[in-house]
Parts: sequence; structure tokens; C-alpha cells
Amino acid sequence: MKSKLFLATLLFSSVSLLAQNMNNVQMPEITRVNKRTLIHVPTMLGYQTLKCDFHMHTDFSDGQVWPTVRVDEAWQMGLDAIAITDHIENYPSKKFVGGDDNSSFDIAKPYADKKGIILIKGAEITRSMTPGHFNALFITNTNELDTPNLMDVFEAAKKQGAFIIWNHPGWKAQQPDTCKWWDIHTELLKKGMLHAVEVFNEQEYYPIAFDWCNEKGIAYIATSDIHGLVENMYDLSRYHRPMTLVLATERTEAALKEAMIARRTIAWFGNFLAGKEEFLSEFFKASLTIKLLSENPKEKVYQVINASDVPFMLKAVSGTQFTIAAYGESVIEIPAKCKGDFEVSNLIIRSNKRLTVKFPF
Amino acid sequence: MKSKLFLATLLFSSVSLLAQNMNNVQMPEITRVNKRTLIHVPTMLGYQTLKCDFHMHTDFSDGQVWPTVRVDEAWQMGLDAIAITDHIENYPSKKFVGGDDNSSFDIAKPYADKKGIILIKGAEITRSMTPGHFNALFITNTNELDTPNLMDVFEAAKKQGAFIIWNHPGWKAQQPDTCKWWDIHTELLKKGMLHAVEVFNEQEYYPIAFDWCNEKGIAYIATSDIHGLVENMYDLSRYHRPMTLVLATERTEAALKEAMIARRTIAWFGNFLAGKEEFLSEFFKASLTIKLLSENPKEKVYQVINASDVPFMLKAVSGTQFTIAAYGESVIEIPAKCKGDFEVSNLIIRSNKRLTVKFPF
Amino acid sequence: MKSKLFLATLLFSSVSLLAQNMNNVQMPEITRVNKRTLIHVPTMLGYQTLKCDFHMHTDFSDGQVWPTVRVDEAWQMGLDAIAITDHIENYPSKKFVGGDDNSSFDIAKPYADKKGIILIKGAEITRSMTPGHFNALFITNTNELDTPNLMDVFEAAKKQGAFIIWNHPGWKAQQPDTCKWWDIHTELLKKGMLHAVEVFNEQEYYPIAFDWCNEKGIAYIATSDIHGLVENMYDLSRYHRPMTLVLATERTEAALKEAMIARRTIAWFGNFLAGKEEFLSEFFKASLTIKLLSENPKEKVYQVINASDVPFMLKAVSGTQFTIAAYGESVIEIPAKCKGDFEVSNLIIRSNKRLTVKFPF
Amino acid sequence: MKSKLFLATLLFSSVSLLAQNMNNVQMPEITRVNKRTLIHVPTMLGYQTLKCDFHMHTDFSDGQVWPTVRVDEAWQMGLDAIAITDHIENYPSKKFVGGDDNSSFDIAKPYADKKGIILIKGAEITRSMTPGHFNALFITNTNELDTPNLMDVFEAAKKQGAFIIWNHPGWKAQQPDTCKWWDIHTELLKKGMLHAVEVFNEQEYYPIAFDWCNEKGIAYIATSDIHGLVENMYDLSRYHRPMTLVLATERTEAALKEAMIARRTIAWFGNFLAGKEEFLSEFFKASLTIKLLSENPKEKVYQVINASDVPFMLKAVSGTQFTIAAYGESVIEIPAKCKGDFEVSNLIIRSNKRLTVKFPF
Repeated sequence: MKSKLFLATLLFSSVSLLAQNMNNVQMPEITRVNKRTLIHVPTMLGYQTLKCDFHMHTDFSDGQVWPTVRVDEAWQMGLDAIAITDHIENYPSKKFVGGDDNSSFDIAKPYADKKGIILIKGAEITRSMTPGHFNALFITNTNELDTPNLMDVFEAAKKQGAFIIWNHPGWKAQQPDTCKWWDIHTELLKKGMLHAVEVFNEQEYYPIAFDWCNEKGIAYIATSDIHGLVENMYDLSRYHRPMTLVLATERTEAALKEAMIARRTIAWFGNFLAGKEEFLSEFFKASLTIKLLSENPKEKVYQVINASDVPFMLKAVSGTQFTIAAYGESVIEIPAKCKGDFEVSNLIIRSNKRLTVKFPF
Repeated sequence: MKSKLFLATLLFSSVSLLAQNMNNVQMPEITRVNKRTLIHVPTMLGYQTLKCDFHMHTDFSDGQVWPTVRVDEAWQMGLDAIAITDHIENYPSKKFVGGDDNSSFDIAKPYADKKGIILIKGAEITRSMTPGHFNALFITNTNELDTPNLMDVFEAAKKQGAFIIWNHPGWKAQQPDTCKWWDIHTELLKKGMLHAVEVFNEQEYYPIAFDWCNEKGIAYIATSDIHGLVENMYDLSRYHRPMTLVLATERTEAALKEAMIARRTIAWFGNFLAGKEEFLSEFFKASLTIKLLSENPKEKVYQVINASDVPFMLKAVSGTQFTIAAYGESVIEIPAKCKGDFEVSNLIIRSNKRLTVKFPF
Repeated sequence: MKSKLFLATLLFSSVSLLAQNMNNVQMPEITRVNKRTLIHVPTMLGYQTLKCDFHMHTDFSDGQVWPTVRVDEAWQMGLDAIAITDHIENYPSKKFVGGDDNSSFDIAKPYADKKGIILIKGAEITRSMTPGHFNALFITNTNELDTPNLMDVFEAAKKQGAFIIWNHPGWKAQQPDTCKWWDIHTELLKKGMLHAVEVFNEQEYYPIAFDWCNEKGIAYIATSDIHGLVENMYDLSRYHRPMTLVLATERTEAALKEAMIARRTIAWFGNFLAGKEEFLSEFFKASLTIKLLSENPKEKVYQVINASDVPFMLKAVSGTQFTIAAYGESVIEIPAKCKGDFEVSNLIIRSNKRLTVKFPF
Repeated sequence: MKSKLFLATLLFSSVSLLAQNMNNVQMPEITRVNKRTLIHVPTMLGYQTLKCDFHMHTDFSDGQVWPTVRVDEAWQMGLDAIAITDHIENYPSKKFVGGDDNSSFDIAKPYADKKGIILIKGAEITRSMTPGHFNALFITNTNELDTPNLMDVFEAAKKQGAFIIWNHPGWKAQQPDTCKWWDIHTELLKKGMLHAVEVFNEQEYYPIAFDWCNEKGIAYIATSDIHGLVENMYDLSRYHRPMTLVLATERTEAALKEAMIARRTIAWFGNFLAGKEEFLSEFFKASLTIKLLSENPKEKVYQVINASDVPFMLKAVSGTQFTIAAYGESVIEIPAKCKGDFEVSNLIIRSNKRLTVKFPF
């Protein structure tokens, strides 16, 4: 009987099998459940929707944690892929930390493999304005990017097949009074050295960058740019950490890169999605299952099941407003007088434009 | 411009389109999101798994709320079906509440229809021991059960096609020192007037009742027997309210009744499931997706995705213990030395027996 | 040894006294802790700060719960005093509920006494505009207010010594396009039949009512006007329910009435306080303990302990913004260049004016 | 008007001053409030009750974070004092981390000063059994402890005035089948090189160590021994991290040391306190304010306000059990038949003994 669980004892030790009250005094379970959050997003257009954060730091530049902690955070918070992007320049790392520009990746890679997280090799090219900071992803040897001349860095990155993102374009420390696209960015774009822009970074968004994505044909990116702990920066009880959703043919690094080059990305921050109209429209439709519950001359009542963690805030021209709650079921009452399309306030397709939808489809 | 959302103003009112910090002072959203919880349970054996609570009270006996509140609770907490089971005898209702024995059902029914909740007509036959309290479900006219002679009540219920449950068999107020099955229960069973027993009621479970279900061929039932507010009784941040899972061919009252008569039920309370071995075994398998992540001479590492809100607490004869977290993904490491079957501590099939499983399947 | 707690068994049953891991499988504690929330507000100006909600409904008009549930809610949510204010007119109560206009009070009173909640007898005078709805508090016999002629009702209330509040003055159902003070309100004020106004009701606030309080010498009131469950209406994980703070000489009904007539009230809704400048200024000071932690030419660093559940959102003319978190300790860094006074964005003293403070004092 | 807050715009921009609904669409506040938890414990016996964790690791031995992160955690979680106790031996630190045995302290100290956290210089003497692992606190130069011979290390620590704790005495990796006190521990004790023992470490407690504290005159210590993130190890939504309470004359390092040498400590883990009877008895009394609410022949009803974050689980010989909820107000009903003393199940004074109290006092 020694192999019996304590539970068995609790449940069945009473000879008379009387009712047992559950509220006996117990040693509390003080530890946190070690569990990976499921981020609910729909698969769409035949793609898998990968959850990614492509900008973060560790002890090997100016971050506060060992590289493996970034993998733990990614696993716990439900991400599929991350890039550790320690600063290259000006950071001979902390006085106490050795290694070279590849070390943070080398340390984290085996652990990422064990936990099933795709770890993309990356680095932050850290220059003053212009042109600012850039993340080079999918590189193979960061040390080759550690060179003083600006264009040499970009050439080295391109040679390694890098996907390059302009980081926080309107960062106040660099563009305090504006958020401007300079000639150097046009040059980088033309040379195939600029593929995307952060429309959201840490706590900031850059409205004009939504338009750049559309006008200049670059990808929408949202990142945490985390230096300390993700859990300390964001209120994870209410929102997922900022992330980039990538529509990939499969859950592999190669498929991820193909998808990013093809610009199949959506930026997600707080309750907001920003991306191409076609992707947000499909995200909306793929998330919802709508059923008419009842109908009378004054209103129609719908059951709406939202399979994604994104709520949808709708507003009709006629003034009717309602929110389809995130992940779960809502009952929505639409007045008969409410006609026409709805604007989805939290699905952004231009700096001055939201997605327009029909409800129900 | 009046039709523009406030959001648009916030996002885009700045002419220069500078970075905006999200932490501006805002009027807080003080209201609670009106959303229905999704209870995650697997479909299994070709059935839908309906979430039900068949025992609760309202202002029309000794409860504290208007009948419609029971529908609101059921909707918010993700149930498919409920029965309002106000006491018949001794409760000419509160001094101030009128109506007859059908009133609580009549008041709640239209609202249940609007919200998509299956409301089963029920009533609690409230007698001292023996035989105790019983819930008659699927009845058509409660007034006909409001008669002094005990067997007349059961006859009336049977005539209406009732499914009859023995409530809280070991309730201390009625069986303070024991939890005994009496001759009268055998008689009721033989006459087709007893179909199920509450193995769990409110906060209590009755271990011997697990065995009655198996030996006497009656159905497992778990109920809240709520009189006040469900939210005040249970810690809903950690557990669903107690409920009976019913494996039904479809989500209708008729299918529900068929399934209950066929005894396709599982009692769920806290982290525990109690039911027939075949159902718990299938529940376990249908909930899990397991994938080998890595392997070495010392251990195998598995990714385990649990699609149900029930965690599974496993223990091998060799001593290895681990918990598959509820709804989400865990990484489980199984030592090479661990051989043989596992006991699932929280899946109960007898008063002294737990489900035994293989892991991985 | 039978009287030993289960806990003792768990802790000490092992003969060898080896280390015990806390994560054994246990029956979970599924019930919610039955505890009264402590609302943290400072005592000030020599008064006790009583937490009150003076507007709510029960089964005895158009509410959804038995009167005792309002006492349970008040106790759990930390209130000192409530008034149940069932509608007088047009509500011969629900078809099924009997009693008279005093019944909801009579039912709740003994239970309120047992739980230590001050229950004020009240009723809602429910008229179309003008003049709208009013709550009469501290009345003695509601039945005497149940009379058709408007002024007869107010006369009866006055005769009983009522404190009378104009409810939701800008309620869209009554004043859809405006929030206007009519002649009848001036008349009531002159006759001593109007003492206060709801500046906040349920989810709405009425900015112009802040000015009426100042200009016309009436008291600030915030109420829930709850009909269903308070817990379903508000996100109590983030905010207290709306309430009126009353600065009373002691925690008695008599002291409460004296304080309200003297207009020593503050309306609290979400993160906002609205009230007389002198009271909000004192609330701010009485809540905070500030200590200089360090200082250099660029900044001063302060430890700030906030003893109230109200955060304070400060903004300097020079642009510095910071929030003193609710109940707890913050570290605040004030740049040397930041001079002058701060506006506290969430402390409202006029429709277009916030409290101005010095920081540190 | 540019200096006006957004809030002002929201509240008052409407010319007509109509009612405003709070549920407009808003940019969510995605960041977490940067706030220090208030740990509620009573001051007692004229001492301040300091909250301390004396065992933790960083990148400078086998931890996962930069030393400053330990200060951030301590500040956020409400501690007064911590010791960073990186391993001395066998940890020439990670391959990539330089510095010497003093580095983690040197890095964290200025930041601790800025945040107002007392940082005690410490180190973990890491030896196989016997004698096991020890933390030396209040040392001045860790490098001098980095020497192969065991007794040389203890001599060096003593010379620096160290307070020495035997860590996790029953750790399975070192004492798999027992939790034994060896001769070497007696020797260390006699030589003034052993002052305390961890009765709790990370997730484990060692019942026999409660008795050692009493019999051998050493202090009770509870620590996290954290290597990763405190937040990932413990369920902080329900419990504080494990800690040692120290009854000190003031909040300074010197007073802390004096108090520890005088053994005025209490170990706190989960809901449990372990310590000297006199301290636990005083903790219980100093936490509670009890008031008789009502009385009848069958029972007495008490209002109980608990000013500490520790709940108290009481059980009378007559069988009455109740829990005084942590920090807040409970209503407790004591049957008239309940006589005599209560055992407080979660206040431990011996391996087989709980604190006995009177209720009410």
C-alpha cells in the first residue's frame, strides 16, 4: 500500500465512507504550473499562423538575462519562433561577459531545440540616425557584421541572406520630433537590404509606418525589444506580448523565412492587428462562427464564437457599436435599423483606415 | 467626421504622426466583459459532450435569486443544459413569492431559449430519510408531484417520464454517521423510479456512491445544488463549477434524456472525473496529443497538448509522478527506467480504484 | 490521534522525516474564500471615511435578486452602508412577488444587522422627465410615498426627513440630447427636497453635474444602480464597484445622515474621484507617504507609499507625467527641470478642472 | 490647450456635456503596473518585521539572471533584504562570465541602494555531504572563502563575522534516504560556525529541522534558493515567495544581523509559519482584531480582521474548524458547545506540534 498516492488516502481512508468535505487543511501547492500558453489564432488561406517575436536582448549586449531565459519565455508564452538580436556595435558586452557576437545564439540554440522553439539567428545593427537601428535575421555568422563601415555591415548581412527590419523608426531618442523616411532607407530598399519595418516596438506604435508597409512593399513587424523580463513589461493577464504573426506553409525556419520575404505578416500589439487588408479580412472571417439565435422585427440575436484571442470592436455607420469578445462566445443583438458595413476599430490597414466588414458575413 | 471612433482620434489626431505612447491617462473600462466561458472537453465515441448542472434553486423555494439568474450563470459559465429543481414540499415558497410549482420554470424558459441554454423542467422531492431527497427531471407538470404520499409522488413523476436522481446520499443532516443504501432505494430502483445518484453535491463527494453506480447500474451525477450565487460558492478562477458531462448524440433535450437513461454520464468536480472506466479511458485519450521531442539513454521528452480543462495526474508503479497540465501544452520527461502502466490519480472508477493508462498510448 | 488534522498526517506521517515535496496530488479546495474585501481609503480631517452605495434594486421592483443578496454583496465588497431603493411607482412588483413598499427593507434588515452593514431605508421615486427619478433615503415608511401626485410624494418624503438625490440626470432614456437642469429642480432645491445628484450612475458620468454640485450646493453621489449582480456588471479584479465616500464622525446611520446633509461626500467611479477641492486635496495628502531616496543634479528619486486604492495620475506643466500606483509602493523619478505644480488627472473638481497639487508636498 | 491631457479631451470635449459611456474603444494599457507589493505582517514585541530571502543565484554561478534582476524581484515582491549567494567552489562561473567571487555583489549593490533594498553580501559554501552546503552572510570579501580546505573556508567566514546557515539539510541529492545531523555539524556549532538551518528550501521542508532549531538553539530560515525567475517558480497570485521574517530593532543591515544572531526569525512558506512558540503566538495576536457581532444561546458571531497575509486555520478539540482568511475581514461563527483551546494547523512550533491558542483571546 505504500505505493498508493496520498490522494487515495484522503479519499478512501475513512472506513465508513462518509461524506468528505473538501476544505480540510492542506499543504498548499505553492509552485506555479509549468505550462505553455496556447495562443489562439486561426489558420488561414492554407497557411499555419506562426507566433513570433524577432527582437530581444540578453546578457550578451544590454539585456538582463541569460540567453536560455528568452527560450523559456517564448515557450511559456506560446511563441513558435524568436530571434535573439543582441547589439553588435558599441557593446563589447558588459564588462564581465565574454564570448563573441555569436555566443548568445550558440548558448540558446540547444535549449530551443529541446523545447521545440525555432531560434532564428539575428543581430541588431545599432547606428545613430540616419539610418537608425536594424535587425538582421536568418544570418549565419554575426561576427562578420561586426565592422565599422555602415554599408559593409549591410553588405555582409545581405551576403548571408539576411531579412532586414528597420527598428522603431520613430524612436524619440533618434527622431524626437518626427518619424521620417530618409534617402538612406530608399537606398537600402532598392539594394534589397530592407524588407520590413517595426510598426510597433515595446510600447510604441508608429502610425505612418502602417502606410510605408503598403506604399513601399515592406512587411509589418511588431516586437517586444525586451531587455528585462517580458513578464515585468506587459500585463500578461490581459494581453499576449507583442508579436508578429507569420503565415507560413509549415512550422520550420525555412518556411518562416519564405513567408516573411513574401510579406505574409501581421503585427499584433495589445488588442490591435495591423496588416494587409486581405490578411486582416481573412483573419476576421476565419476566427468567427456566427449563428442566428432569434429574430424579431426589432432585432436579430446572434451567437458568435470567436476562436481567436483577438476581440473585434465593430461600429456601424448608423452608430451601433459592439465588441465580439476574445476567445469565447458572445451573444450579439443587432437592431433592425442597423444597415450596411461595420468598421473594425482594432484592425488597422492604413494610418487612417480600419478594416470594413459585413456582419454577419 | 462625427462617425469616427474615438480610437481613430487617439491614434491619428497627431498631425506629425509621431510615436504615441500607449500609457496615456484614459477613462478605465470598468465593466466586465460579457462573455461565455468555453469549457474545453473532447468529443468522444461519436458523441457530443454536453456540460450540465441538474440541481439548483431559486426564489421559488429557498434560493436567493430570480430564475433568470440561473440561466445567466449557466450561459456565462459555459453550460449546455440546466435543471432548476426547486423544492416541492414544505416550501409554499417564501412568504412573499407567489406562483405555483411550475413558476420558476415558466419564468426562466423564454430567457433560456433566447440564450441558447437547454432548460430541463425539474423539481426536488424533499423527504426526510428514508428515502431522502430526489430530483425528478424531464417532468411536464410539477404541480402533479405536489402531493403528500411518498409513492404517489414517485408514481406521478414516473408517469411524466421522469429521470430520477437520489441527491446527496450521505448528507450529514440526513445520514450523519453513515452513507447507506436502504431497502426503499432498492424498491425505487426496481420500479424504474431511480436512475442515478449524486456522487458529488455542492462541496461533498460520497465515495461509496461510485460503487453503487457500478453495482446497481445507475448514472454518475455531480451537481452544485446552488442556493446563492455560483460565483460566491466556487473559486471559478481555478475550477469550473461542478457538473455532469453527458455524451449525447446531439445538443437537444431529447438527446440529453436518451443519453442519461443510457447512463453515458461523467461526474466532474474540481480536478476529478468519476465515471465508467470506458468513458474515462476515452476521455483521457481523446484529450491528448503526444509527440516525442527528443530521446536519450536516460529519458524521453514528450510534448503533450491537452485539449481539455482537466489536468491528468499520473503516477507509475516505479514512482515517477507528473501532471499533464489542463488545457495547454506541457513538456514531460519520462526516465528510461520508468516502465509499465500509470495510475491517473484524478480519474475515479471505483471507491478504491483509479483509471490505469499507458503513457504514451 | 483521531482529532489530528489531516495536515498533521501529511506533514509528519513519514517515519524517517525525509524531505516532503509539496506537489503531491491533493483534493483541490474548490470553494471560494468567504472574505470581505478591505477598501483602502484614508481617514481624513478627523472623520471616518465610509464606503456607501445608495442605489440598488431587488426582486421587489425590477431587480434580479432577493434583498439579502444585496447585503452579501456589500459585505464581500467592503461597503459600510447601502440603501435598497426599489421603485415605488409602476412596479406593483413582479407578477409573482407580494409584500408592500417596505418589504425589501424588512427582509434585508436583520441580515444586515448580523453582518454589520448599515442598511438605510430608501426608495426610488420613478417619474418621467421632468423631473425624472429620485432616491429618498433615511425614510421611515415607504408606503406613504406611494401616491400619484408628484409633490405629494416629495412632501411625504420630506416629512419623514428624507435626504433626496436626483438620479442619473442625463440618462439617455429621459434626456436623450441634453443634460439639463429644469425649473422643477430649482423648486425642489428651494423647498429642501433636493440634496444631491448622481454625478455617476452604473456606467455613466454627467460632467455638468460636477458643476451643479459646486454652484447649487448639493452633494456628489456615485452609485451602481445595480439590478442584476454587481459582480457581473463590473470588473472587480481591477476596480471597486462605484461608491460614494462619506466623511462621517462615526460609523452609524445617524452620523452618516449628518455627513450627507453637510455634503461631506466624494464620488468614486473607476479610477476617478469627484468632489469638493478641499476633500480631494486632503484625500491626496492623507493617502501618501513620500521619502527622498536619492538625489543628483539630473533627478530626484522618491519612494511613495500610497495607502489608498486610488492611483494618482500626475502631469506637470513641463510635461513630466507619472502615476502613483494604487495601494502599494512606487519609486518616482522627478527630473530636475520639472518645476511647479502638477495636475492630478483623475481627481475632478469641476467639469473642466482637475485638482492641482505640489509633489512632493 | 495643448498641455491638456487626453483625459480632459475625453471627458469634456463634448459641447453638450451629455452622458458619456465609458466603454468607448480605447488603446489598451498593455504594460504592467510597476509597483511594489505590500507584504502585510504585524510589527510585534517592539520590533519591525523585516521580510528577507537569504539564498539566491545569478549568472555569476549557476543562476539565469544578471544580479540586478534579483534586486528588481525583491523590490517588486515587497522584500526588505536579500543576500545573493552564488556558489564559491566548482563554479569558475559560466564559460562566458568573468569577474571574481565578489562581482555579483558589486554589480547589484548600487542598484539595491537606489531601490532601497538591503543587500547582504553572501556566498554559498558548496561541499558534498558531509557537511553539505552552507550560506555565509554578512561577509566582507568572498574571495577569501575561495580555498580548497573545508575548515579554512569556515575559518575565513568566521573571521569576517559571518552568520552561517546550513542549507537544505535533507536535500535528496545529498541525503537521499535520511535527514541526519552529523558530528561535523555539532563541531561547526560548537566553534560558532553554524547559526541557523533552512527548514524550508525552494519547494521542500524538513520536519526534523524544526526540532533542531529548538534543541540546538539555531535560527529558523526559509529561502527560495532561486536560480531562474522567482515568478516562474511560485504561484505569486496566491502566495508570497518563501521568506524569513526577522524581528529587528530597525530596518538596517546592522539591526538585521543583530536580530539573526539573537534568533528572532520566523520561516514563512506557503501558508505556513515555523518558529519559536513565543514569536508565533505573538504573530497570531498582533495580526487579529476581534469584535463580537452578535450572540445567542447557540452561537457567538465574531467579526475578525486579519492584518497579516497569513491565514489562520483553527481546530478545536470539539471538532469545530474554521479559517480566518488572510488580510481582510471574516465573520466567524463559534457554536456554544465549542470550548477550550484551538490548534492553529499552519503555525508550526515542533515537528509534531502546532501552536495552541485561545479564540477569542
